[in-house]
Amino acid sequence: MHTLHVDLGERTYPIYIGRDLLADDSLLSQHVSGSQVVIISNETVAPLYVEKVRTALGSRDLVTEIVLPDGEQYKTLETLSHIFDRVMEHRHNRGTTFIAVGGGVVGDVAGFAAASYQRGVNFLQVPTTLLSQVDSSVGGKTAVNHPLGKNMIGAFYQPQAVLIDINTLHTLPARELSAGLAEVVKYGLISDEPFYRWLQDNMPRLLAREEAALAEAIERSCANKAEVVAADEREGGLRAILNLGHTFGHAIETAQGYGRWLHGEAVAVGMLLALDLSARRRWIPAREVSAYRDLLVSMHLPTDIPVDMGEEQFLSLMGRDKKVIDGTLRLVLLRGIGEACIVDDTSREELRTLLQAAAQSASG
Amino acid sequence: MHTLHVDLGERTYPIYIGRDLLADDSLLSQHVSGSQVVIISNETVAPLYVEKVRTALGSRDLVTEIVLPDGEQYKTLETLSHIFDRVMEHRHNRGTTFIAVGGGVVGDVAGFAAASYQRGVNFLQVPTTLLSQVDSSVGGKTAVNHPLGKNMIGAFYQPQAVLIDINTLHTLPARELSAGLAEVVKYGLISDEPFYRWLQDNMPRLLAREEAALAEAIERSCANKAEVVAADEREGGLRAILNLGHTFGHAIETAQGYGRWLHGEAVAVGMLLALDLSARRRWIPAREVSAYRDLLVSMHLPTDIPVDMGEEQFLSLMGRDKKVIDGTLRLVLLRGIGEACIVDDTSREELRTLLQAAAQSASG
Repeated sequence: MHTLHVDLGERTYPIYIGRDLLADDSLLSQHVSGSQVVIISNETVAPLYVEKVRTALGSRDLVTEIVLPDGEQYKTLETLSHIFDRVMEHRHNRGTTFIAVGGGVVGDVAGFAAASYQRGVNFLQVPTTLLSQVDSSVGGKTAVNHPLGKNMIGAFYQPQAVLIDINTLHTLPARELSAGLAEVVKYGLISDEPFYRWLQDNMPRLLAREEAALAEAIERSCANKAEVVAADEREGGLRAILNLGHTFGHAIETAQGYGRWLHGEAVAVGMLLALDLSARRRWIPAREVSAYRDLLVSMHLPTDIPVDMGEEQFLSLMGRDKKVIDGTLRLVLLRGIGEACIVDDTSREELRTLLQAAAQSASG
Repeated sequence: MHTLHVDLGERTYPIYIGRDLLADDSLLSQHVSGSQVVIISNETVAPLYVEKVRTALGSRDLVTEIVLPDGEQYKTLETLSHIFDRVMEHRHNRGTTFIAVGGGVVGDVAGFAAASYQRGVNFLQVPTTLLSQVDSSVGGKTAVNHPLGKNMIGAFYQPQAVLIDINTLHTLPARELSAGLAEVVKYGLISDEPFYRWLQDNMPRLLAREEAALAEAIERSCANKAEVVAADEREGGLRAILNLGHTFGHAIETAQGYGRWLHGEAVAVGMLLALDLSARRRWIPAREVSAYRDLLVSMHLPTDIPVDMGEEQFLSLMGRDKKVIDGTLRLVLLRGIGEACIVDDTSREELRTLLQAAAQSASG
C-alpha cells in the first residue's frame, strides 16, 4: 500500500492506494469517529462493494445505506434532497460520517451532502472508478449539476481520507476505464512530460489492467493533482490548469444531455481541441496533436466533436462556463507538453476557426 | 457610524452600524468587486429598500433581483433551487456578488446560495430586521430548513461585509421588533450581565425605537456575538452558548410548523425554560426567572409553551436537534446571569419535570 498526503494545513488528509484495501478493517474504521455512518453508493456499485465496506466498519449503532440510480443525469439537487430525506428520517446527528462508495457522481453528490448536512459532517471517499480515483476524490470539489450547467452548485469540502482499492478496477467496464485514462493522460499533458511519455509507452499495459501499471498511473496522477491542489485549494489561479479540455468538454456534455458522453470522453476530445489551439498558436508542434489523437484511438476514445454540434452552440455553451469571469473566457492551453498555461485572450474568431475545423473533421 | 470587525483571519469582515447607511453610495460599492450583482429580498422588504440598494451600487452590467415570498416556511431547498434557476438563466459568473436585503430567512437562504453557487461567490448582508441585525448577519451560519428539522442543510460562509442601517427598524412590525429584542436579551444572559441590567432598565426606550438606544443595543449584541464567533468559528465548543433557549425553541417552531411562531418568540420561551432549569439546579436564584418572565411580559412576548404541545412531543423533537451528538443532548444553561455553560448530563426525568410544569403553567 502507498499513502499520499494532500497537504492542506489542518485539512490535510491521506490517500491510500493499493490492492485489497477494502479487506483491511482498520483503514476505514480509524477515520470514523462516531457510531453513525451513512453509506452512499449507486445501484451498479452497491451490490459489488457496499457489503465489504460494512464489514470493514465493524459494528456501529446506525448505518444507513442510500443507493442512488447510476448516471450523471442523477447528479442533481433532487438527488441531494433525497439523501437529506433519508438521513433526517434516520436521525443522523452531527457526529455521523458519510462514506461515498462509487464513481465521480456518487463522490460529488455525497461530498456536497456531507458538506451541507448540519453544515458539514465527516466524509470518506472510496472511489471505485479510475476517473474518480485520479480526479474527483482528490481536491475537495463537490457539486451537483444545474440543467443549464455542470457542477454549478457545490462546495469545497475535503474528505478525512480517500481509500483507493485497485481491485475495484477489475469490474469497471472498458469504456469507463478508457474515460478514466483520459484524465490520467491529462496530468502528463499539463505538468509532467516524463509521465506523459511513460503513458504513451505503457497504454497497452494499462488497458490490459496490469495492476502494477495501474497503481503507478494512479499514484502519479494523484501526486500531480495533490501538488496543484495544495498550492491553490480554492482555485485562485494555478488550480485552473486541471481544467485542460474541460471548458470544451463541458460544452459537449451539456449539449448532449448529461450521461450520453462520459465525462472522460468529453474531456479527451476537449483536450484535443486545446492541443489543436496550442498548435495553431505554434506553442506545440503539430505532430504532438497527431500523436495525441493516435493515443486516443489506441484507447478507443472518441476523437471528434458530436456531428450535430454547430460552432455557435459550442460558443454559447462555453460562455456559460464557470471559467468565465466578467465576460472573459479563460482557457487552459499548452506552452509545451507538461506545461499548461491559462489564457484569457482567445478571440471569438480564433475559436470559431478551431471549431469549424473540428466540425468539418467530425462530419468528414 | 460605528464599524465592528469580526476577527476571522483572512475572512475578517466589517459590520457597519448607523443611520442612513443605505444612502451612502460608497459603503456597499467598495465591497462589490465585479460588474454583476444578485439582490435577494422578499416581497415585504423589496418595495421598501431594494431601490435604495440599487442606487447605492451605481451602474453595473448585470443586476438580477430575486424576490422571495415572505416567511420561514419558504426557507427551503425549493427556494434555493429557484434562486439558482434565476441566477443561471441570467448567466451570473463566479465574479458575481450576492446581496441579501431582508431578515434572517433572506440572509440564511441567500447566504447558502452564495456559498454554493459555483462553490462560493461574494456575499454582502443588508439585514433589515432587528433579529437579523444582531444574530444571523454575524457569524457566517447559513442554512435552509428540512421538513424534519430547522437549519439542517447549510454552510459556514462569511460575508464580505454587513451593513446595518438603523432606519430600517422604523418599518419593522412591533411583533418582529420584540422577537429581535429577545435575541438581544440573550447576549446579556449568556455573557454580559451589565448589558442585561442595562436592557432591563432601557427596554421602554428600545420598544419606543429610540435610535440611540437601538444603536447601542445592536452594537453591544454584535460585539458580544463577534467575540464568541471569533473564538470558535465552526462551533467546536464555546459558540454553542449562543444557542441558549434554541433547543427548546426549535422544538416549538418545528411542532407548530415554521412561521406560526417567530424565531425570537420561540427562543424567548426557550430561554425561560433554560432559566427555569438553571434555577431548579440552584445555579441562579428563582427571582431571576420571575424577573426574566416580567421582562418578556413588558416586551409583549409569549411566556408559555404552546398549549397543545405535550412533553413527549417536546422530548422527541429535542432529540432530533443538531446539538445531539452520539445520543447525548447538549443544553445551554446559566451558572449565573451573564455566565452560560453547556451541560450534557440532563436526564429525561429532569426534562420531563420541567416540561410538565411548563405545560401546566400554559394550560392554567
